[in-house]
Amino acid sequence: MDVAAYMAELGQQARAAAREVARSTTAVRNQALLATADALDKARQELVLANQKDLASGRASGLDDAMLDRLELTGARIDTMIEGLRQVAALPDPVGVITDMTYRPSGIQVGKMRVPLGVIGIIYESRPNVTVEAASLCLKSGNATILRGGSEAIHSNQAIAACLASGLASVGLPESAVQVVTTTDRAAVGELITMPQYVDVIVPRGGKGLIERISRDARVPVIKHLDGICHVYIDSHADPEKALRVAVNSKTHRYGTCNTMETLLVDQEIADDMLPLLAAEFTAKGVELRGCERTRTVLNDIVQATEDDWHAEYLAPVLAVRVVDGLDGAIDHINHYSSQHTDSIITENYTRARRFLTEVDSSSVMVNASTRFADGFEYGLGAEIGISTDKIHARGPVGLEGLTSQKYVVFGDGHVRA
Amino acid sequence: MDVAAYMAELGQQARAAAREVARSTTAVRNQALLATADALDKARQELVLANQKDLASGRASGLDDAMLDRLELTGARIDTMIEGLRQVAALPDPVGVITDMTYRPSGIQVGKMRVPLGVIGIIYESRPNVTVEAASLCLKSGNATILRGGSEAIHSNQAIAACLASGLASVGLPESAVQVVTTTDRAAVGELITMPQYVDVIVPRGGKGLIERISRDARVPVIKHLDGICHVYIDSHADPEKALRVAVNSKTHRYGTCNTMETLLVDQEIADDMLPLLAAEFTAKGVELRGCERTRTVLNDIVQATEDDWHAEYLAPVLAVRVVDGLDGAIDHINHYSSQHTDSIITENYTRARRFLTEVDSSSVMVNASTRFADGFEYGLGAEIGISTDKIHARGPVGLEGLTSQKYVVFGDGHVRA
Repeated sequence: MDVAAYMAELGQQARAAAREVARSTTAVRNQALLATADALDKARQELVLANQKDLASGRASGLDDAMLDRLELTGARIDTMIEGLRQVAALPDPVGVITDMTYRPSGIQVGKMRVPLGVIGIIYESRPNVTVEAASLCLKSGNATILRGGSEAIHSNQAIAACLASGLASVGLPESAVQVVTTTDRAAVGELITMPQYVDVIVPRGGKGLIERISRDARVPVIKHLDGICHVYIDSHADPEKALRVAVNSKTHRYGTCNTMETLLVDQEIADDMLPLLAAEFTAKGVELRGCERTRTVLNDIVQATEDDWHAEYLAPVLAVRVVDGLDGAIDHINHYSSQHTDSIITENYTRARRFLTEVDSSSVMVNASTRFADGFEYGLGAEIGISTDKIHARGPVGLEGLTSQKYVVFGDGHVRA
Repeated sequence: MDVAAYMAELGQQARAAAREVARSTTAVRNQALLATADALDKARQELVLANQKDLASGRASGLDDAMLDRLELTGARIDTMIEGLRQVAALPDPVGVITDMTYRPSGIQVGKMRVPLGVIGIIYESRPNVTVEAASLCLKSGNATILRGGSEAIHSNQAIAACLASGLASVGLPESAVQVVTTTDRAAVGELITMPQYVDVIVPRGGKGLIERISRDARVPVIKHLDGICHVYIDSHADPEKALRVAVNSKTHRYGTCNTMETLLVDQEIADDMLPLLAAEFTAKGVELRGCERTRTVLNDIVQATEDDWHAEYLAPVLAVRVVDGLDGAIDHINHYSSQHTDSIITENYTRARRFLTEVDSSSVMVNASTRFADGFEYGLGAEIGISTDKIHARGPVGLEGLTSQKYVVFGDGHVRA
């Protein structure tokens, strides 16, 4: 198979379909999403059969249990996909929204109209539900999509693709508005990320290694999320009860998520009082603490943290703890080690809260709130295609608006420049 | 000279300075701009002397007259630089603006805060006034800048850099907030565009060749403007007087600008009536017309347009003219040949105007207005660092807001996720 020619064909078809999708009305796109939900509901048996093929070859090729779990399409997971489609259909449509319309001294009227990006390439790993999730957000926001899932989920993804195709066809939208790559040849990824003539942006979803590789080789802009090294800083003016509650929630609500706290910073002024309280809570929850020198003068039975710990995204019940010299020490540590994902200060002090918000250069900065809130749903975006740790285009949780752009619209009445 | 080491040092200094600039108040940054204006005013003699060195070596190395003209710093051009600084100081500061602050069902309050991008790399050619213009916009928007001007303007740029340094120093901002590359080694550009650890975005200003090269090799996002192949479409429902006025202004107001019309599209229904009127006006202005077959059945003395003409950015008194089959023909032509810069429809028909606005995929779409309005000043941005023909991050004229990003701010009162 000529992978380059195949991908170029997908690209051409996507580019043509993108025009039709961009032109379609909100109602038509919503109907396509609802029809896809119905198609998934009717295809439960086919979905499970296709998924069983993937699971069987996954087992045969020695995938670990975590991988197999992510790969599995249970009835409950199909329910979630169906429910997700209906929720996306119910969201407000960002496309066509016109803002900032003003008259200029020349007499022209200028504003901005929100428009789809065009063609979005999604590269992801084992979980087949991403096929529906990503495709639905791209379609809702008026874009065409090319999806490249993991080869281990190829049959499941094709079965889901058939439901998407029938949903699109039912409202007269081109089936090529959502295309799932059918080859498992890895060269397909290389092609997808180097076709700027056909693809406007790439959204990779997966491990850091995958995303780093894609970012390095892409000739197309990438909305990327590398890692989440999130901090909670407990200031000397913190309310101790809020500090304990937020620190414990930020770490222990879920260990494997990118918005989980990985390093706790404690102001030296209150370290003697707070550290034993924190240690008691974390130890009770089974969290291993690794502390700096100063932390260990208070908590002398914990492991010494090394430089690597400040850089670590554990995604596990392990927490690095550092005593810092007040707000400046905390900001210095965060701006050096944070992955610019989410960082929170616990304080009752107005000026320190303001300085933290202004000076910490992360995509989400918080006061007296758990880092676990950094999430498209919690922020009210209605959906989330990912969390961007970049600064260009989209920063933080990316919802429908992040899959659009704005163009200028100008109304005149025969106006010319003098 | 070790160019890589030198550029890495500039990068490190810029990164450190960016933190200080981001932290500085609006008033301090404005004072630095005004102090730079005063410094330029006092340094007129040094500026002219430095510029004479550049002009002398330019002449010796055989630069053409147009290049030498762009290179020259006259008294009037120094006035313009000074006036520009004062205007930028007077603009509203985008940094720190908080919008969309809402309460969520969880009780947290979420909004977005506009923040600087960090370090901006500017790559440009002969005109030394770009040094002041670009640096002032980056500083105003809270960013640090590394500027790499043309080697032919090296002495002029260094003299301007000295004024910027004194302006920064006078308010206690680090001089490394604006750094002008002192080496003329071309390898410096290669380094600047491949240091994502130090540079957040590159803004190239210059010819298409330069920008294509930079976009191809950059490992840093590029806000790029490739070319301006702008269209005016005269619909059968156009007011003929408005059509003539806008078409003539779009082409002849200035020939060398990117928002100048390069191809005129005329609805076949009115071609017989409109083409002779248009031809008379354009011929009187000395504009050469190149027409499609159908155009030449009406205007039989004009040159036949070839495929190359539809792709041409003439930047000269030459205009391609094509007769199209109504609105669909116009949209098809534009979405195929346009550089997605600026396209305008002339019509009195409501539905066609709406369809043109929605279906033409360009950064500026206009109704009954000259393409020459596509400009940051005309749009009310107050300033313009360039015009983006990309879709990601910034589209169309890029002002201060395009040099910023938004982060999420979250206020809680000890809130945790349930």
